[in-house]
Amino acid sequence: MKTIINDTFMLKTDTARKLYHEHAESMPIIDYHNHLSPREICEDRMYENMTAVWLGGDHYKWRAMRAMGYPEELVTGVTVDMSGSENKAEKDYKRFLAYADTVQSCVGNPLYHWTHLELKRYFDIDTALTPDTAEEIWDECNQKLKLKEYSTLNLLRRQKVKVLCTTDDPIDDLKFHKEIAGKISDISVRPSFRPGNVLDIEKDTYNNYIKKLEEASGISISDVEALLEALKIRLKYFMENGCRVTDHSLEGDFFRRTSKEEVNRIFRKRMEAATDSEGLSPNPLSVDEAAAYRGYVMGELGKLYAEDGLAMQLHIGAIRNNSDRMFKLLGADTGYDSVHDMNYAPQLAELLNSMDKEDKLPRTILYYLNPKDAAMLMTMAGNFQGNSEGIKGRIQLGSAWWFNDHKNGMRQQLQAFSDNGVLATFIGMLTDSRSFLSFPRHEYFRRILCDMVGDLVESGEYPADMDFLGKMIEDICYNNAQKYFRF
Amino acid sequence: MKTIINDTFMLKTDTARKLYHEHAESMPIIDYHNHLSPREICEDRMYENMTAVWLGGDHYKWRAMRAMGYPEELVTGVTVDMSGSENKAEKDYKRFLAYADTVQSCVGNPLYHWTHLELKRYFDIDTALTPDTAEEIWDECNQKLKLKEYSTLNLLRRQKVKVLCTTDDPIDDLKFHKEIAGKISDISVRPSFRPGNVLDIEKDTYNNYIKKLEEASGISISDVEALLEALKIRLKYFMENGCRVTDHSLEGDFFRRTSKEEVNRIFRKRMEAATDSEGLSPNPLSVDEAAAYRGYVMGELGKLYAEDGLAMQLHIGAIRNNSDRMFKLLGADTGYDSVHDMNYAPQLAELLNSMDKEDKLPRTILYYLNPKDAAMLMTMAGNFQGNSEGIKGRIQLGSAWWFNDHKNGMRQQLQAFSDNGVLATFIGMLTDSRSFLSFPRHEYFRRILCDMVGDLVESGEYPADMDFLGKMIEDICYNNAQKYFRF
Amino acid sequence: MKTIINDTFMLKTDTARKLYHEHAESMPIIDYHNHLSPREICEDRMYENMTAVWLGGDHYKWRAMRAMGYPEELVTGVTVDMSGSENKAEKDYKRFLAYADTVQSCVGNPLYHWTHLELKRYFDIDTALTPDTAEEIWDECNQKLKLKEYSTLNLLRRQKVKVLCTTDDPIDDLKFHKEIAGKISDISVRPSFRPGNVLDIEKDTYNNYIKKLEEASGISISDVEALLEALKIRLKYFMENGCRVTDHSLEGDFFRRTSKEEVNRIFRKRMEAATDSEGLSPNPLSVDEAAAYRGYVMGELGKLYAEDGLAMQLHIGAIRNNSDRMFKLLGADTGYDSVHDMNYAPQLAELLNSMDKEDKLPRTILYYLNPKDAAMLMTMAGNFQGNSEGIKGRIQLGSAWWFNDHKNGMRQQLQAFSDNGVLATFIGMLTDSRSFLSFPRHEYFRRILCDMVGDLVESGEYPADMDFLGKMIEDICYNNAQKYFRF
Repeated sequence: MKTIINDTFMLKTDTARKLYHEHAESMPIIDYHNHLSPREICEDRMYENMTAVWLGGDHYKWRAMRAMGYPEELVTGVTVDMSGSENKAEKDYKRFLAYADTVQSCVGNPLYHWTHLELKRYFDIDTALTPDTAEEIWDECNQKLKLKEYSTLNLLRRQKVKVLCTTDDPIDDLKFHKEIAGKISDISVRPSFRPGNVLDIEKDTYNNYIKKLEEASGISISDVEALLEALKIRLKYFMENGCRVTDHSLEGDFFRRTSKEEVNRIFRKRMEAATDSEGLSPNPLSVDEAAAYRGYVMGELGKLYAEDGLAMQLHIGAIRNNSDRMFKLLGADTGYDSVHDMNYAPQLAELLNSMDKEDKLPRTILYYLNPKDAAMLMTMAGNFQGNSEGIKGRIQLGSAWWFNDHKNGMRQQLQAFSDNGVLATFIGMLTDSRSFLSFPRHEYFRRILCDMVGDLVESGEYPADMDFLGKMIEDICYNNAQKYFRF
Repeated sequence: MKTIINDTFMLKTDTARKLYHEHAESMPIIDYHNHLSPREICEDRMYENMTAVWLGGDHYKWRAMRAMGYPEELVTGVTVDMSGSENKAEKDYKRFLAYADTVQSCVGNPLYHWTHLELKRYFDIDTALTPDTAEEIWDECNQKLKLKEYSTLNLLRRQKVKVLCTTDDPIDDLKFHKEIAGKISDISVRPSFRPGNVLDIEKDTYNNYIKKLEEASGISISDVEALLEALKIRLKYFMENGCRVTDHSLEGDFFRRTSKEEVNRIFRKRMEAATDSEGLSPNPLSVDEAAAYRGYVMGELGKLYAEDGLAMQLHIGAIRNNSDRMFKLLGADTGYDSVHDMNYAPQLAELLNSMDKEDKLPRTILYYLNPKDAAMLMTMAGNFQGNSEGIKGRIQLGSAWWFNDHKNGMRQQLQAFSDNGVLATFIGMLTDSRSFLSFPRHEYFRRILCDMVGDLVESGEYPADMDFLGKMIEDICYNNAQKYFRF
Repeated sequence: MKTIINDTFMLKTDTARKLYHEHAESMPIIDYHNHLSPREICEDRMYENMTAVWLGGDHYKWRAMRAMGYPEELVTGVTVDMSGSENKAEKDYKRFLAYADTVQSCVGNPLYHWTHLELKRYFDIDTALTPDTAEEIWDECNQKLKLKEYSTLNLLRRQKVKVLCTTDDPIDDLKFHKEIAGKISDISVRPSFRPGNVLDIEKDTYNNYIKKLEEASGISISDVEALLEALKIRLKYFMENGCRVTDHSLEGDFFRRTSKEEVNRIFRKRMEAATDSEGLSPNPLSVDEAAAYRGYVMGELGKLYAEDGLAMQLHIGAIRNNSDRMFKLLGADTGYDSVHDMNYAPQLAELLNSMDKEDKLPRTILYYLNPKDAAMLMTMAGNFQGNSEGIKGRIQLGSAWWFNDHKNGMRQQLQAFSDNGVLATFIGMLTDSRSFLSFPRHEYFRRILCDMVGDLVESGEYPADMDFLGKMIEDICYNNAQKYFRF
């Protein structure tokens, strides 16, 4: 059985094919948001086998395998009773086989497409992965993984990645970024500033984190002014190391009208909470107090970003670590997060307005996790577009994120974008991935984008102005992001 | 005018047609959730005429007729002033005629498809129902309804129904189920355990119901432990009579963190409320108290289900009896319910986690009434899939329910299922119906399923692996449900 | 480059084309809700140039231009520092050019279609508007705008507008409506009763407004009974001047169970708030108090409407004036509003029930701004359809509103309508517009409607009963509205 990956994959119309092959296909990649490990880039890591590559940290695959009824031992490899005396190589193959069975059953799921795009683009394999073909594919891929062209850096080069923005904590010393910059010139690996540990004041680890931030910044943090001063120092350090993008996850309430005085009171109340021997400090704040703090700090950070021309990403609407049992076993980011359904239009309006009021709202990218929020978020972006710098799509709806990262989700995001905005200003795709093999997702996005525009042309909803449309596709694939982020 | 029911109905592509006719069409039916009357099955009821069959209890049709401006007398047959001196047969025909007019206007509505599927599959009628053809169809159907092959049991046999799960109250004596089991071997009619009267602690009838539960279980219910003990006894009784499925409707808040002690206090507070001469007892509890009680009892019941391998259905998001005026006239389930818009991700996460924490979350089916909840619910299911028994799709998104039970709703549900899960694990369709003629809805679902998979194949999104896909279709139509419910 | 506007625009199938050209195209227009200026109709205004026509007040275009990064001076023409010494004609052309650039980039956006429909239908221009063609189009249109056939009344006549309902405040003297009625017989220009200033009790201007209402009605308003009496007098006046439709925007909480006594207390509390020298009076009420007042007054107004056979429009779910900065500069309705995400099913159910309880729920049209509310609202409408007058679709889902006013939004609204209701009862399109050139949006809607019905026929989901379907299309385009509103 041949795979479905061919020239016309996801491209229904002639216009779509023309747009893709003449304009999208050859554009290099800017991946302005992902969770790749700077260390693994720096060390130019090699992979042991396909299980390491595919099942090492990919919660998309883990969730699918669990839905198939596979035990955790074959999913993440973790056994509850730690009894596993099995040979690792044998177990790795069993896990690969379990994934082959799973992916065959993933009819209509993006894993099916990602998997076969990766087999084709990285391993030149045309065979559909099934339990029957698993062994042959296992052997062939593992052979290839031994070659130097399968190192992390070479995998990136193979996909024409030019810019890569990792996601980093403000206290990170960025030593890998510095080292990479010192030795690699063809790929720009930039840090992103993600002050999640500062914003998540409810976390047991907050007080401890503030101490680390004091160390990293050299600032004694006794109030919110000092906190912001410390963050400003770290932000400056990040910018010196190439940072152009920031990132924030908004998961619960994130804005209440407040004052600097009240926020200082809240901060002190938090810092006065006792810290135990493991460095944990239970949260004494109410939901409202935490939201007031978070909104205030977000607003002040946003103004800093605006001053420096940085982009602010807001990822909104995850609900995380839903299974206590599995969190204890596996920790965070292991496939136990999902889509929240909170409403947040008024909070978001007030948060953005708090910066806009001083004309200090930065370039902002709004990502929804719950598809119900697409129209709300797209039209909210439209409220704050005005700017004197001529930035196109200054506030914009982010690419289809996480649980929306599939054909239907991308179609919905593109539709929301064009229904209530100017599609040509879209800055396009990012992988948001932890996997070095995930870059064909840019191809996937580009095909879906070209297919959608092809549909508009062939149904007579836009003229066949191929010069304009070709340029628009190139812009969305690459140029818009380059200009927007000032890479 | 011919009806639209033919071999290619709802099947756009060759692949869809092949999948349907070679794999789906011949599969028997497991209808694992409906509201059929066990008495009417047991008594093998015959119908007087098409108005009795179609307009006897079908609120879908009633709502459409009301939207057409027909007076209640022609809808349910009820007159506000009870003045109706009209000849019943004449009125029945007038009601049928009103429905014929209505269904013709139902362009794009599933009633149009259900009606013509029923005319074709049960009465072999090919003519479209309109005011012009109503008389001819009325006469032909009524003639046929006199034949023995139109008894309830024979109607079920004609559609190859193998298993049928009715919906029953814990205090039900299940005498009809027993009687059916004693005389019928080709159709397995099983009760489902629906403890709605136990969970809806706000209802005026709650205290009275608890007394009936005491009688049915032989347990004196003075606290929540005793309540659960009584339910356990009834559940055992249900299982002895074939029960494998349970059912719950979650309509308002349904979870608060609480303790057994608090729930006992809430229960006592409720039971101490005065009961009037009609057996009604107004609710003294706050919304939070009711939610704490409901979440606790649901959690404990769920653990019982898990121990016994029963499936737990959660139907979430109806808002009921919205018209006081019509409720007084017609009572519940008469077409005055609709789609709620509450958000409930955190509550649901906590409810499921409360069982999962002890690894006692049963097989669970999550149904949304509001389509906005599809992605949230599908990804929530994914948080709790892990299991050591190898159950495929242990937690899953239920089939398109009620106001979603149409082509677009089914497409959306199948898409949500495949976008963020493994389609091949889906346990498929149920009618949720009160009508003995509703089984062609399985055909309707199967055609839409095959059409959707056909689209994926013919657009190159899945290979034309007809062996695998054919088996998957058969599994979703029948085998998956059989295994999942252990029928 | 030719425009996309041709006979088959938006009409994919032969059935769609037949339905459109044989049934929809020739029907005149009832525009039962818009924001046109009665003065501009009365004075039969002429336009200076295309910038006056297109960029004079159209916030759809303004938002798109801002998204393109154009400065406010080229969008609304307003400069922050008011320094603009530029020649107005020159600036007007620059603004037109900026719009030409914008619309070219609006791939998939309704502005693209509206713009080219307007160029074709009013100016007979077939060329796509781009920066390259802007000058030629500018010149040709501006020449034509000088002709008498481009006066407001003649623009309306050109589109066969028969009935037009403007949106008016209860205190309006309707002098332009009277004058129009005295001199124009071929277009019926009717006022609509929009008591927004009465319902928005939180507004600083409320107390002042009540004084104006006292003057207009001749009633001294010391309590809610008197307030309703004053409104009744104004409503009667509106009806004498042709009013058949009322309009209300529900944006925050709008219902709490209350009593007349409590509402009087709330009203007095509001009226006792001090008024400053500018006539502003800050709101002393809580959210709950305002909602109780609003729900009570809405309910009482609704009963008045029911008695008089008026239709009640509820536009639900906007969030307005999100940018303080731009509100100060430009005021309301300038493109800083967007889609709210509040949930409101229980409130709406109670509000409608409060009227239905006395069988005094008027004809009601429910509009959603957030597409997530489509299914909720459509099924809510179904709860209150029963009526003794035989009104078809008495409670119905309104046409795709504002941010939904595009192909996908209309498709979704039509789908929600047909999935859970009777499409043939739909009263169809309105422009909701402030622009005299917006009437081709009826053509746009009709094409999309015919296309959708064509799809149902050609995919075998409804028989090719062209007599019935042709009549249905004509009804939805014109006849249903005429009957529903009793024009």
